[in-house]
Amino acid sequence: MANKKPILGITMGDPAGIGPEIAAKVISKKETFDVCRPIVIGDAVVMKNVLEIANVLLEVNTVSNVFEAKFAPGVIDVFDLRNVDIQKLEFGKISAMAGNASFESIKKAIDLALKGELDGTVTGPIQKESMNLAGHQFPGHTEIYATFTDTKDFAMLLAYEDLRVIHVSTHVPLRDVHTKVKKGRILKVIELLHEACQSFGVESPKIGVAGLNPHASDGGLFGKEEKEQIIPAIKAANRKGYMVEGPYPPDVLFPMMKGGYFDGCVAMYHDQGHIPFKLIGFEWNNVLQRMENVRGVNITLGLPIIRTSVDHGTAFEIAGKGVASTEALELAIDYAAKLAIGKKFKTP
Amino acid sequence: MANKKPILGITMGDPAGIGPEIAAKVISKKETFDVCRPIVIGDAVVMKNVLEIANVLLEVNTVSNVFEAKFAPGVIDVFDLRNVDIQKLEFGKISAMAGNASFESIKKAIDLALKGELDGTVTGPIQKESMNLAGHQFPGHTEIYATFTDTKDFAMLLAYEDLRVIHVSTHVPLRDVHTKVKKGRILKVIELLHEACQSFGVESPKIGVAGLNPHASDGGLFGKEEKEQIIPAIKAANRKGYMVEGPYPPDVLFPMMKGGYFDGCVAMYHDQGHIPFKLIGFEWNNVLQRMENVRGVNITLGLPIIRTSVDHGTAFEIAGKGVASTEALELAIDYAAKLAIGKKFKTP
Repeated sequence: MANKKPILGITMGDPAGIGPEIAAKVISKKETFDVCRPIVIGDAVVMKNVLEIANVLLEVNTVSNVFEAKFAPGVIDVFDLRNVDIQKLEFGKISAMAGNASFESIKKAIDLALKGELDGTVTGPIQKESMNLAGHQFPGHTEIYATFTDTKDFAMLLAYEDLRVIHVSTHVPLRDVHTKVKKGRILKVIELLHEACQSFGVESPKIGVAGLNPHASDGGLFGKEEKEQIIPAIKAANRKGYMVEGPYPPDVLFPMMKGGYFDGCVAMYHDQGHIPFKLIGFEWNNVLQRMENVRGVNITLGLPIIRTSVDHGTAFEIAGKGVASTEALELAIDYAAKLAIGKKFKTP
Repeated sequence: MANKKPILGITMGDPAGIGPEIAAKVISKKETFDVCRPIVIGDAVVMKNVLEIANVLLEVNTVSNVFEAKFAPGVIDVFDLRNVDIQKLEFGKISAMAGNASFESIKKAIDLALKGELDGTVTGPIQKESMNLAGHQFPGHTEIYATFTDTKDFAMLLAYEDLRVIHVSTHVPLRDVHTKVKKGRILKVIELLHEACQSFGVESPKIGVAGLNPHASDGGLFGKEEKEQIIPAIKAANRKGYMVEGPYPPDVLFPMMKGGYFDGCVAMYHDQGHIPFKLIGFEWNNVLQRMENVRGVNITLGLPIIRTSVDHGTAFEIAGKGVASTEALELAIDYAAKLAIGKKFKTP
């Protein structure tokens, strides 16, 4: 049993996007089986249909139970939800059918992980407009996971190599961000980040905290959240023994992070963390006029189950063309496997 | 007169910071005289004192009138304000004396430029706390320039090579940013950016506009400023013939900018523009534990006079050690010279 690998459920994502084709490509690689036992959660006909697009030769093993999976290189196990009418599916189009399929695939992955049949889940990209059209009103994966695992204290971590950014708030209008910047919440995300860094092998992580305001308020000149919430949270974290510094001016913190000064950083809002992260991990190809090398993994911390995700969207403009990069999905699988090993995963 | 260069006033900045030493270093370089006729506005004793620190051999020509300047390599012309008691000056220390000196140097540079004796001004780094201690209550250079040139429609542009980011708002608390995101203001900064790009040789600039909210509000899910203000501004700009696209999700816009898709970008708030810009231009040296290669120029657009600046601070921790990088000041001088040439500068 020494080489037993964690079982990871990979959701197909929106069937009109690049999710199915990148899942097929990744499962066609032997290296994937070196780190996990993968199973796709989605529609088996969609997955069969996408093999030619992805230019891979794979035997499709359609199952309705994780225990029927073969977990063998050359085989793609699909937990079949039978929820897509392939005749009606169009790449790059918003539809309730596709949105519903993407939602059900996430819901099933969560259920299987909660039951202990999966050691972790890795999610493919979804199209929120399609999902909302289908009647599932969630701003994103994170909130779906929180709802169906009944979790209150969760947070979004972006990770790539030695860069890790956790978010105090995510999908809220910018004008409301300041209402989320509270001492207790900041302390909680510091704790989640500290634990996550340890899972990734950093024993005593050094954590940097961003200010909310320009120049971290410049001593109170532009805003008071640093003084009233952020500094007290950092002091409380230090008293608990965490190595935490800040608040730094946000435009100074991230160059320091990139330079290796921190093991992890705390961002106060979505774009404060996402802008620097994607600027490092994403590459725009101006000749082909598309984003390439979308490196970065999105991890939901604080859940009772493991969830990692690609950090890019459905890329409707290139869906069905077989050109989408698989790098982010490979990274997401690697991270999920590491987290599962860190948690001493339970599946036989 | 074919090789006549614009006269640029370089403010000394806070005398307790790195401003004087980087000014001395830059003026010791012959290349500086290839692009401009430089004159330092500040305290002559401070500048004399700093020559050894900067490890440069220069003749100090103390003047009380721009017309007395020699503008010769090997000479540093100093417009002497005699406002620092060198016995009391300490590197790296906040003081009203230093703050007052930095303020007076800016004020004089503005006056000389308004009178047409300077073709442009380049500002060294100041320490706001010191300046405020001295009774000058301004959040930064930009506001000092706006006040003393009686300018309402100004904006901060960061520039480095082909990257240009203009800001709709700057030194305001994050919670108030949404009040600054107005159609008329956005249209104005688009116009300023378009003109600036043309000064830098881009005839038909392509401009990208960031959203305010995460995912540029994802169709209205997280915020309404995109729909109510930003999109109408972009449409108005397009009707006026400007090539403008957006609003893009902020975490997508800047990787596209870095990849060369845009000639200039519009950021809605200070950190939205500063985080990506400094992440590209700044380099943290984790061995020496300091910021190096602080590349980037800060340009105030919309003023009746030219003003560029280094995009870094006083760096108190290394002031007086002679190790500060001059790259940003060199860039700021280059940009000011280009802008002066674009405006067909007037000095004889």
